[in-house]
Amino acid sequence: MTDNNKAYDELISINKEISIINSILALLGWDEQTYMPTEGAEYRGDQTAYFSGLAHSKSTDPRIGDLLAELETAGFEGDKLDPQSVNVREWRKDYDLGVKLPQSLVEEMSKTIVLSQHAWMDARSKKDFSIFQPHLEKVVELQRQKAECFGYTTEAYDALLNLFEPGAISSDLEITLNSLRDELVPMLQKISDATNKPDSTILYQDFPIDKQEAFAKEVAAGIGYDFDRGSLNVTAHPFMTGLGPNDLRITTRYYPKYLNGALFGVIHEAGHAMYEQNLLAEYYATPLGESVSMGIHESQSRMWENNVARGMAFWEHWYPTAQKYFTALNGVKLDDFYRAINEIKPSFIRVEADELTYNLHILLRFEIERELIRGNLKVEDLPGYWNENFNKYFDLDVPDDSQGCMQDVHWGAGLFGYFPTYSLGTLNAAQFYAQAESEIGDLDAMFRVGEFSKLRNWLTEKIHTQGRRFMSQQLTKEVTGRDLDSVDLINYLKGKLYPVYGI
Amino acid sequence: MTDNNKAYDELISINKEISIINSILALLGWDEQTYMPTEGAEYRGDQTAYFSGLAHSKSTDPRIGDLLAELETAGFEGDKLDPQSVNVREWRKDYDLGVKLPQSLVEEMSKTIVLSQHAWMDARSKKDFSIFQPHLEKVVELQRQKAECFGYTTEAYDALLNLFEPGAISSDLEITLNSLRDELVPMLQKISDATNKPDSTILYQDFPIDKQEAFAKEVAAGIGYDFDRGSLNVTAHPFMTGLGPNDLRITTRYYPKYLNGALFGVIHEAGHAMYEQNLLAEYYATPLGESVSMGIHESQSRMWENNVARGMAFWEHWYPTAQKYFTALNGVKLDDFYRAINEIKPSFIRVEADELTYNLHILLRFEIERELIRGNLKVEDLPGYWNENFNKYFDLDVPDDSQGCMQDVHWGAGLFGYFPTYSLGTLNAAQFYAQAESEIGDLDAMFRVGEFSKLRNWLTEKIHTQGRRFMSQQLTKEVTGRDLDSVDLINYLKGKLYPVYGI
Repeated sequence: MTDNNKAYDELISINKEISIINSILALLGWDEQTYMPTEGAEYRGDQTAYFSGLAHSKSTDPRIGDLLAELETAGFEGDKLDPQSVNVREWRKDYDLGVKLPQSLVEEMSKTIVLSQHAWMDARSKKDFSIFQPHLEKVVELQRQKAECFGYTTEAYDALLNLFEPGAISSDLEITLNSLRDELVPMLQKISDATNKPDSTILYQDFPIDKQEAFAKEVAAGIGYDFDRGSLNVTAHPFMTGLGPNDLRITTRYYPKYLNGALFGVIHEAGHAMYEQNLLAEYYATPLGESVSMGIHESQSRMWENNVARGMAFWEHWYPTAQKYFTALNGVKLDDFYRAINEIKPSFIRVEADELTYNLHILLRFEIERELIRGNLKVEDLPGYWNENFNKYFDLDVPDDSQGCMQDVHWGAGLFGYFPTYSLGTLNAAQFYAQAESEIGDLDAMFRVGEFSKLRNWLTEKIHTQGRRFMSQQLTKEVTGRDLDSVDLINYLKGKLYPVYGI
Repeated sequence: MTDNNKAYDELISINKEISIINSILALLGWDEQTYMPTEGAEYRGDQTAYFSGLAHSKSTDPRIGDLLAELETAGFEGDKLDPQSVNVREWRKDYDLGVKLPQSLVEEMSKTIVLSQHAWMDARSKKDFSIFQPHLEKVVELQRQKAECFGYTTEAYDALLNLFEPGAISSDLEITLNSLRDELVPMLQKISDATNKPDSTILYQDFPIDKQEAFAKEVAAGIGYDFDRGSLNVTAHPFMTGLGPNDLRITTRYYPKYLNGALFGVIHEAGHAMYEQNLLAEYYATPLGESVSMGIHESQSRMWENNVARGMAFWEHWYPTAQKYFTALNGVKLDDFYRAINEIKPSFIRVEADELTYNLHILLRFEIERELIRGNLKVEDLPGYWNENFNKYFDLDVPDDSQGCMQDVHWGAGLFGYFPTYSLGTLNAAQFYAQAESEIGDLDAMFRVGEFSKLRNWLTEKIHTQGRRFMSQQLTKEVTGRDLDSVDLINYLKGKLYPVYGI
């Protein structure tokens, strides 16, 4: 076994080097979105391009292929679940994906995306799709080429989806999401028809930014985000990023007259960060120490943001503290606050959407990007297609493309296959949460006394420390005993929202 | 000339790559001292070590030596001052220095310094030199080995000094600094004997941090620091750092009950940053687009901090603004404020010292580190030697080594030869300032109306855009017509401080 150990150790060492380079890309990205001066952008592009190239060339070094082949011959591959077998199996996937992509396509994609993102920003501010259209056409064409390089069984879109949710098959996903839609649309109708509606204006008062920051930090630390291994900084577009095994940062933006944006945003990002803070440290820089998929990642952020932090029990604990921070809440009853933060209201913008309609936003995008990759929908027809289908789901007329098909950064940035992972996250969050409750008891009773560690530890044991041992679909089954479905999500939404609306 | 151009272009391209790697080291350092979470330190060490190694190996690639030899054969070297010749000459110096240092010594130094800095922090907090002593002994020994690798004409210390002030010779420097000391010591006596002393307690009142930040930013922008190409962030130990040609950041720390610390610190760092913001952009990543030495760098920061911002004319312009920001200054007359910011008072800590005594702090350190490298002073005898000589200069008894020989980070960090550049900066600042005034007229009259661009543009033309065209000693002569001496500094200090003290 000495030779095998030697090969394995060399792979560890190569991957530690790749991880350091990737951590620099994360730092460059974090800094770009937080403190970098405006004029620093051009050189930041040079820095990022250099290290992206370095990471790609190190990740596709033929030496990796040789070492993997050596280990596979010695029986490391297959369905074994010991750490070394898992790492060899996942390294193989990463390597095979990396080498399938020719350097020329990587470079053309990078250049195209820089231009298309600029065009998108310009088009969005001018509400003029025609500025964006030729760029998006190029992006779609390159995405299809990329899918062909990777290969697929049924449809090209699967190859793109797999970059964010390995193992996912879009025809399966379609069935799950359609069954979700079939429940959500009548639910939304029922809620829209309800007469006893929450009053969300109480969330739009004076909430001083320094108080918002202090309260959000107290809450994030309270649910288990470790600030000694992280930080909270200000950005235009909130995100979580990992700069090292003990450096998992979150960002947010503050609105001086709106509480929810920063508060629930911080809890959401803290959910992401707690996943990475609780990965197995001793497997850092190997698949066993990495998060498994975007969908599972999003399940962690959404569970803390929604299933936990939009619950009554959570606020029975935190509301007195909130009232100490914010004089605006002093005359507001807990029940009114609770109802306000659970308001359901169709709106044009995905990132501002509530828990229920959010999934409809995702469904629309999933259908559209799949049709674009199939070639059934032409880019030039995108605005019309969007507006027509948006109206079907939301019964709203899109006023312009900036509030319609041009609202999100994803397509211009070449992120096809990413959107559905948001709904996978929501579905997984509900299914994991129900399972946690069945195993560790009354979660509300724990939250009421500020006890969040039992849920967090359960997530750490069942999900975080599993790394990439299982694929995400298998992980859901291992943890909950069944495949992913929409049953728990629908139960959760009905159980919470109907009472909020007096239904 | 085609082949030469090809070789030159290849060197440009190699140096652009090295610059990108160095910019990452700068970003890692900036982040470490601003926003990195505490537990991120260990991995930050791995990241820094990796990129330091990469930078060293790229900088000492034999290909560089071959290309330089090719260009030198074609007549690029020598005393020519055209851009290509200057770059080839300076690249040669950098390369020859780099390859003289064996990788093993570089690595041993890195490891030693990590440990010695930890020991220094521990020893300083416990006021126990014995904890630091064995580490400092190792550092001094390695510094002497380093000096031997580089080589020198007269004494080993010169080889270390040259890393920060290329071309400087310590025996020459000794003459200049001793003549300065011979003037400063009796000046200090005279000032100490004066009965009409400034009242600096007005600087120790409530100065809200957000106001301090806003005012410091207004002043920094007012003297010409470009915030579109920079930023101001909070740190424990203020510094300026360059993360790219258009990304020159400054940092500071705020004291809620003391105005000067942050205010003059920001102006100081802005002075450093304006030097780098005004380097020739088209020569970025080549010596012609780089600062020439630490001494010249320090001349820029000190000139703005002291010669400009501790002057009456500066405050005739800015004081009304300061009074708008700070209610604490509302009852304080301009003249009393001016005298307070120019108080001269011997104290133990260098970084808190005034304009006059600061140079005595440096003299003491210059003598001591030279004797350590010579082997005339043993590390074990350092505390006694320090305390005895400190008393000679300042007539004060050092209470403990944390306020004595262990106050500065430099020696534990292996920065021998760095201290004298602070006084070189002060001397150059005075000499450049006097020259500027003789060429562009009454600077006070300009400052009084908030006109700082004439001085800044003069500095840009005479110093910033020269890059490394001349060595620093030659640059002083080119700009002022004579070698560096202490005449202008003494005149400046007497001309300002005697009236402040009614002498």
